[in-house]
Amino acid sequence: MACDETGLTHACGVFACIRADGVSSEEVDVASVISLGLVSLQHRGQESAGIVTNESGRFHQHKGMGLASQIFQEQHIKSLTGNMGIGHTRYSTAGSSELVNCQPFVVDTIHGQMAVGHNGELVNAKALRKKVLLQGTGLSTGSDSEVITQLLTATPPCGEPDGANWPGRIYEMMQLTQISYSLVIMTKRCIYAVRDPHGNRPLCIGKLRNLTDSPQFSRLGRKIMHNGHDSDISKDHDLGWVVSSESCGFHSFGASMYREVKPGEIIELTAKGINSVRIVPPQNPEKPMSFCVFEYVYFARPDSMFEGQMVYGVRQQCGKQLAIEAPVEAELVSTVPESATPAALGYSLRTGIPYVEVLTKNRYVGRTFIQPSNRLRKLGVARKFGPISMNFKGKRIVLIDDSIVRGNTMGPIIKLLKQAGAREVHIRVASPPVKYPCYMGINIPTKEELIANRMNADQLAKELGADSLVYLSLEGLLNAVQVGIDDSADRKTGHCTACLSGKYPVQLDW
Amino acid sequence: MACDETGLTHACGVFACIRADGVSSEEVDVASVISLGLVSLQHRGQESAGIVTNESGRFHQHKGMGLASQIFQEQHIKSLTGNMGIGHTRYSTAGSSELVNCQPFVVDTIHGQMAVGHNGELVNAKALRKKVLLQGTGLSTGSDSEVITQLLTATPPCGEPDGANWPGRIYEMMQLTQISYSLVIMTKRCIYAVRDPHGNRPLCIGKLRNLTDSPQFSRLGRKIMHNGHDSDISKDHDLGWVVSSESCGFHSFGASMYREVKPGEIIELTAKGINSVRIVPPQNPEKPMSFCVFEYVYFARPDSMFEGQMVYGVRQQCGKQLAIEAPVEAELVSTVPESATPAALGYSLRTGIPYVEVLTKNRYVGRTFIQPSNRLRKLGVARKFGPISMNFKGKRIVLIDDSIVRGNTMGPIIKLLKQAGAREVHIRVASPPVKYPCYMGINIPTKEELIANRMNADQLAKELGADSLVYLSLEGLLNAVQVGIDDSADRKTGHCTACLSGKYPVQLDW
Amino acid sequence: MACDETGLTHACGVFACIRADGVSSEEVDVASVISLGLVSLQHRGQESAGIVTNESGRFHQHKGMGLASQIFQEQHIKSLTGNMGIGHTRYSTAGSSELVNCQPFVVDTIHGQMAVGHNGELVNAKALRKKVLLQGTGLSTGSDSEVITQLLTATPPCGEPDGANWPGRIYEMMQLTQISYSLVIMTKRCIYAVRDPHGNRPLCIGKLRNLTDSPQFSRLGRKIMHNGHDSDISKDHDLGWVVSSESCGFHSFGASMYREVKPGEIIELTAKGINSVRIVPPQNPEKPMSFCVFEYVYFARPDSMFEGQMVYGVRQQCGKQLAIEAPVEAELVSTVPESATPAALGYSLRTGIPYVEVLTKNRYVGRTFIQPSNRLRKLGVARKFGPISMNFKGKRIVLIDDSIVRGNTMGPIIKLLKQAGAREVHIRVASPPVKYPCYMGINIPTKEELIANRMNADQLAKELGADSLVYLSLEGLLNAVQVGIDDSADRKTGHCTACLSGKYPVQLDW
Amino acid sequence: MACDETGLTHACGVFACIRADGVSSEEVDVASVISLGLVSLQHRGQESAGIVTNESGRFHQHKGMGLASQIFQEQHIKSLTGNMGIGHTRYSTAGSSELVNCQPFVVDTIHGQMAVGHNGELVNAKALRKKVLLQGTGLSTGSDSEVITQLLTATPPCGEPDGANWPGRIYEMMQLTQISYSLVIMTKRCIYAVRDPHGNRPLCIGKLRNLTDSPQFSRLGRKIMHNGHDSDISKDHDLGWVVSSESCGFHSFGASMYREVKPGEIIELTAKGINSVRIVPPQNPEKPMSFCVFEYVYFARPDSMFEGQMVYGVRQQCGKQLAIEAPVEAELVSTVPESATPAALGYSLRTGIPYVEVLTKNRYVGRTFIQPSNRLRKLGVARKFGPISMNFKGKRIVLIDDSIVRGNTMGPIIKLLKQAGAREVHIRVASPPVKYPCYMGINIPTKEELIANRMNADQLAKELGADSLVYLSLEGLLNAVQVGIDDSADRKTGHCTACLSGKYPVQLDW
Repeated sequence: MACDETGLTHACGVFACIRADGVSSEEVDVASVISLGLVSLQHRGQESAGIVTNESGRFHQHKGMGLASQIFQEQHIKSLTGNMGIGHTRYSTAGSSELVNCQPFVVDTIHGQMAVGHNGELVNAKALRKKVLLQGTGLSTGSDSEVITQLLTATPPCGEPDGANWPGRIYEMMQLTQISYSLVIMTKRCIYAVRDPHGNRPLCIGKLRNLTDSPQFSRLGRKIMHNGHDSDISKDHDLGWVVSSESCGFHSFGASMYREVKPGEIIELTAKGINSVRIVPPQNPEKPMSFCVFEYVYFARPDSMFEGQMVYGVRQQCGKQLAIEAPVEAELVSTVPESATPAALGYSLRTGIPYVEVLTKNRYVGRTFIQPSNRLRKLGVARKFGPISMNFKGKRIVLIDDSIVRGNTMGPIIKLLKQAGAREVHIRVASPPVKYPCYMGINIPTKEELIANRMNADQLAKELGADSLVYLSLEGLLNAVQVGIDDSADRKTGHCTACLSGKYPVQLDW
Repeated sequence: MACDETGLTHACGVFACIRADGVSSEEVDVASVISLGLVSLQHRGQESAGIVTNESGRFHQHKGMGLASQIFQEQHIKSLTGNMGIGHTRYSTAGSSELVNCQPFVVDTIHGQMAVGHNGELVNAKALRKKVLLQGTGLSTGSDSEVITQLLTATPPCGEPDGANWPGRIYEMMQLTQISYSLVIMTKRCIYAVRDPHGNRPLCIGKLRNLTDSPQFSRLGRKIMHNGHDSDISKDHDLGWVVSSESCGFHSFGASMYREVKPGEIIELTAKGINSVRIVPPQNPEKPMSFCVFEYVYFARPDSMFEGQMVYGVRQQCGKQLAIEAPVEAELVSTVPESATPAALGYSLRTGIPYVEVLTKNRYVGRTFIQPSNRLRKLGVARKFGPISMNFKGKRIVLIDDSIVRGNTMGPIIKLLKQAGAREVHIRVASPPVKYPCYMGINIPTKEELIANRMNADQLAKELGADSLVYLSLEGLLNAVQVGIDDSADRKTGHCTACLSGKYPVQLDW
Repeated sequence: MACDETGLTHACGVFACIRADGVSSEEVDVASVISLGLVSLQHRGQESAGIVTNESGRFHQHKGMGLASQIFQEQHIKSLTGNMGIGHTRYSTAGSSELVNCQPFVVDTIHGQMAVGHNGELVNAKALRKKVLLQGTGLSTGSDSEVITQLLTATPPCGEPDGANWPGRIYEMMQLTQISYSLVIMTKRCIYAVRDPHGNRPLCIGKLRNLTDSPQFSRLGRKIMHNGHDSDISKDHDLGWVVSSESCGFHSFGASMYREVKPGEIIELTAKGINSVRIVPPQNPEKPMSFCVFEYVYFARPDSMFEGQMVYGVRQQCGKQLAIEAPVEAELVSTVPESATPAALGYSLRTGIPYVEVLTKNRYVGRTFIQPSNRLRKLGVARKFGPISMNFKGKRIVLIDDSIVRGNTMGPIIKLLKQAGAREVHIRVASPPVKYPCYMGINIPTKEELIANRMNADQLAKELGADSLVYLSLEGLLNAVQVGIDDSADRKTGHCTACLSGKYPVQLDW
Repeated sequence: MACDETGLTHACGVFACIRADGVSSEEVDVASVISLGLVSLQHRGQESAGIVTNESGRFHQHKGMGLASQIFQEQHIKSLTGNMGIGHTRYSTAGSSELVNCQPFVVDTIHGQMAVGHNGELVNAKALRKKVLLQGTGLSTGSDSEVITQLLTATPPCGEPDGANWPGRIYEMMQLTQISYSLVIMTKRCIYAVRDPHGNRPLCIGKLRNLTDSPQFSRLGRKIMHNGHDSDISKDHDLGWVVSSESCGFHSFGASMYREVKPGEIIELTAKGINSVRIVPPQNPEKPMSFCVFEYVYFARPDSMFEGQMVYGVRQQCGKQLAIEAPVEAELVSTVPESATPAALGYSLRTGIPYVEVLTKNRYVGRTFIQPSNRLRKLGVARKFGPISMNFKGKRIVLIDDSIVRGNTMGPIIKLLKQAGAREVHIRVASPPVKYPCYMGINIPTKEELIANRMNADQLAKELGADSLVYLSLEGLLNAVQVGIDDSADRKTGHCTACLSGKYPVQLDW
């Protein structure tokens, strides 16, 4: 999708960090690491962010609206003391942009404070909400993450004997809802990292490295290849551990990818190390693994790793696949800066048509801009881009986009390119048409707004002023995803394509 | 230069807009156009911005600290009424970041209000400042732009007969100082666009187009080729005119490049059209034209046009030239996102070594970030980038940068790439070493801070951990600039290379 | 107490408004009335404020830190639509000054949204908190008002049959805790106003008047005299009703005092009128009524009415009583501006010693001021006052204060007066010494900080540099309170003097 | 005048402080003292404030919009180093509320930096402005204070020989304009305090006291009595000196009143002491002294001293005089809080009618409040006050106001009192009717807006709903002012009554 301002919105990011016993706060400043972690997950949500730390059972928190780098100032980081903590960054929706919705949610329980950060969306949120309300608990927000939080304390009531058995309570909660969530949960004693049994949202574990020692990433490769034992507790001298929605920012705070949290897995992190407590199987064994394919297509940062492969590689592979499926005679391949560049380079690599830049992006165009006059309104989204006309005047362009959702940004760009001298503009979309709503954490426009429900590729080409337009096939996308998956591990793969195919991983009988 | 936070800083941007007689404010909203113009010049300065409009001699103004898109809200734009106006965006320096320094400067004169926006720096500012002070005028700021403003009213005193002869006064001012300035000056009656006799800073004129008519840029080409008459007043139905430091944003407010303001030229813009009042020759005929070569190398936006050619083209040419001068055996060419991409693509084009992305940029890393702990401090600037290791593991990289000034950002990046598996990293710099201070508008670090004064290319390669490092030669750079210059016009070309060669366009005997 | 910055802090204010059926929102804008109501209760808490309105079951809210007049801007008032609403203003304590604590608390229940505003403090908060936590409800704040909110939904669980019987649920809650609270509770259907069975905190009902008709207050008198029937529903054409902690601001939004909510009473307000649902008797019949005597002494605004009398009158009476108990030879009576003026005028009236101003208050001295140099530190609180020396030079002053808590503001003032020429300064305090903590909503310093626990009146006089110092006796205070009480109604009177006498209205065995 | 929001606005305040040689910055922190000084002058202007300090010729400044206590934070005070400085607080007018107008004005001159703070208004500002503009100096603001600043550097041009003779330049400036200004001027070497030859605006000198020594104000009396020698330089060990528009805040930073600056006097303050450089006589000897009588009536703080007497005393005397001129049968005397309290107490003292409070002021009502609904609009300004009805029900009130300007605040208050039970309300105004504009620094409404130009006292009484209304006579006011003037000094007295009498101190032929 060419431009952020229209289309899908992301599904939050969660993060956690714990410092190993015997490591000083100068070596590993938990709040700094979490704050850097949230900055690295910022693309997953820019509305608000929060950090909660745990200092011997006493929680400290700071939350705010906006970007993590603005919210967490020096004085906040200093006040967020403790040897462990969790963080959350939230995506922006139209209506309920209020501080009260900021995560992590923090509540007092009979067993001390608890904090919860959630990425995902409960498909049966409505029923669970009713369940909590019927138990007599008032809910302060409309958020399903608050529902999870109250389920964790209320089912069974944590006042009962063995109430402090948090893994048990997490297990009970997982019986009530199966998709989708990646959670970080902090109690007074430790942190739990939990991924739903379908593995719908990503979640991975990293190990904090001593930064004086050298090459990490060469070793990283091997590490990923060879890990895979369920309860493997790190034996060497550790600095600590992180949990993150994506691995992309690991090097920015000196961490190495350790492994992904497995679908249904409950990981416990203490100052002594990590432990895989339990793996909860999906209730429907027919559909064991349903990792969101759009994380590959659009959401995740290209340098993140899922299922043993880099997101960048999948995108490039999508471009190559697109070249096979939908060749076109042209002088150059390009893209609208900058999310589809890997796919464009893949298309170029496969076809031999040179990759060339056709547009400059003005990074200073604000999101909410002044109401333009009648005349200026016609310029629309093209205001954000400058044509590098020397590169394409009189030439035929293959313009790669990663996805088309609403379809209202590409038209003005094609017009801009043609006015600047492009002879032909052929659109190639590195993913299939988006036709169905997502109930698992992605904010997709209504069916009516999804352009693929209103016209087919040829009609859309005409509407946009393109000389042709072809989407990648669903099979092509799934092939591209498979190419690089590391199956040396005992990994189950399987992807949710609901928004493209209408096939949902669980029944939606709510 | 890889990263904004170290090195050269820009030299402000100026903008002006006037609406033609008979055109409604709904068609051309002067304040909206200026605000869009400043957004398109934002890369030239992000500290503060201001707009002054003229409503039948009554001036309205709004200024603020920060980015244009934040400063100019709907209500400000609405209050900035009038049929003409000027704007300014200012660069950020360490100390004097105060509202009082925001331009345009507005003063009352005996002939009504006057506003001045200035891009550049007076080499003899100190002497002129003394001159103004000796006349008994107190100066409120340390800015040489205020000196220009007071010179314009005071020399000769505008209380004298013929005091309202503004072109005459501008001419007098140009006799007192010759370099460097591009000015927009608004009086109660009209706007003047002025470029210093050496043409050191850019300034160009655009024509506001009716946006209902179709392809512009194809026609644009011809227009640029064939214009060149001194006092050519537009005959067709005009909407109005703009003046801008760069042409990059013209399409964003529906303007076409008309031509550049010539060195020494005084252009008058009224509601009736534009008029070239006079061309002031340089006092030293030996050095007639000295356009800053660094505008090509680094400052300007790649889609801007200078001397009939696109900046992007020059940068690409620099890459090609570099490929000739400094070949290297490698598997891939890349760059640090994103200013050196054109040069890298040029290098790739000339050598046939494929262009590949090696780093992702995290756009959410704030400028002023929290003080990291000891451990995190070692990560430095690399915090901003994520390695796309799959693209370069085990391979040799030619990494193109546009310039090296302080040299403190490249080291951590090379380290990051090597840790992520790069076999070799060869740095190729698409400009010669920066060795001398600039007194004409560029904020260059002290001689001691310029890394090229402390070590040669080989020493620097060693320091940075690169396997080799080669700069583009000065001749190579000048050749690259010449390739695309449009000399069909009666254009004089010539470039200031003071910061590279130490040869200044004027004598510095102050 | 002379100065706000030291001593007791207030106990919040609650407010509610409902518009009668058939009245337009232009006539009675509920949000505007609440906002004016909160401004009139601002002296009860300046930390934060919130308004929640109810538009056919859909709640709208706006909360913020600071003063009501800053928090509620035009746009907020406009968005707070509905025919009923409640508001809250919160006092400032040192630590937990966070938005999350702002009231009213709003929760979703199985029977729709509910909002709660609370003035007071539960003496058994800790036990009730544990009860809620044991039921498995996580609590987001440390506030006992959240405990009340969750008790209201959870005990019995509102999912049970008859769960929407809110008066029943309120009754249950009142069985669990008896002191202290004045509550406004809004459900999707109506508003409840509740006062604890001991009547510890004030709460009164007002009727919105049509502002075209004339004299209100003459009629007001009669109204108060003659009301007193339990379920009296207003028969005449009503505009609507308000509920407020104090009656002081009634005229500012065109309301008349109707009557006080009785101890233990649950009042229901609907668009049809008001109804007294039930009166819950105190569990301990020995101590039936315990209205906080410090509301008279210091907290309430002088133009508020409690128990049929004006607060101003009680304060004046305290001054008269003090004159009887502690006469002194002096030329003038005065006070530190401005809370003790009524008492000072009362003292003057009784003794015939003229009342004179001795100090001017500088209203612009901020709360948090810059750290003064060593020399300036000595000036302390006197910085806030200017001596009107011409009024007292060479004379003996009786300086009346309403209370002395920490005792650290009077010293510098006496010094200031003496330096400015006062011959003698005799302190007379219009209330007994404060010696015991309050657990019912007043933030009293620790026992050690209460000066009356460290020295007697004579020692204190010496410490402060006063020529004498006498407190009002407890009997004197209780007499002064009784003088004006309207006992024509079936009113039970009785006052809590715990902070003065150590006799608490309920047993503190928690 | 009862309420700030309508009527006259003030005329700024100026302040200066210099530390004596040998005194440490810990003893006398110049910036702290100035900041406290501005807080004490805050009633003279609340729009903006600024401080400029001088550290060995290098000026530091901080300015901001709003109140001094908000503008000057700890970090600003710390950065405002130096042994001398000046400050300014500016009043709020409708239009030009911009930071650029904040004083002190700071300019560079050929002899170093200069800063100017101005209280007053030049009657010939327009002509002088033209003079400056004709000299060729552009002016950045519409402020006459900037005109003074540029006159000081330009006439004669300070580039001429002897240009650094600042007293000479100040003298020249005083020849060009005679009324009205009280100035503090700081050069790189020292501070000048200047009062116009007619003494229209106040200005006084204070001496910083060592705060360990005791009674100040008893000695202060004598000091004022006996000083009067032209060039008296303090001989004892000094801490430093302050200059201030009013003496009211002196005790808040530990200063004692030394004496007033005389009309036309130029005082020089250095680290060695103070020196009276020169006294410039008025050009028109017929009208030698014209101190603004409204400083006594309304502007100044009651604890300030002018001409040897306290403002409070004059106001009380006005009340007494009013009692003689306009007696009335009534049960009580009162006022609208709180500026007319001294006059009301004076009226009470003379007549024996007891002084009683009738209104409580709600200090939390903001200036700009939400747009009320139709119904609430009728309540108007009365929203700010609560009636203490028990004090006046059925009684006749004499309500004293200090002045009536627009007359639109008193009506609603009378209505409020009558509705609350007042039998009669008789207005007595402690100053004559305001009928003429002021051109000397007071922002008076237009002639049409001045109620006294539209109706006489009886008509106004009827309009306002008062039972009677009488103004103090002009003779009565002038008598009241004379009673306490200290004429033991060689003091010339004389007062400007232009706004009351239409007799201006200088001819207005511009």
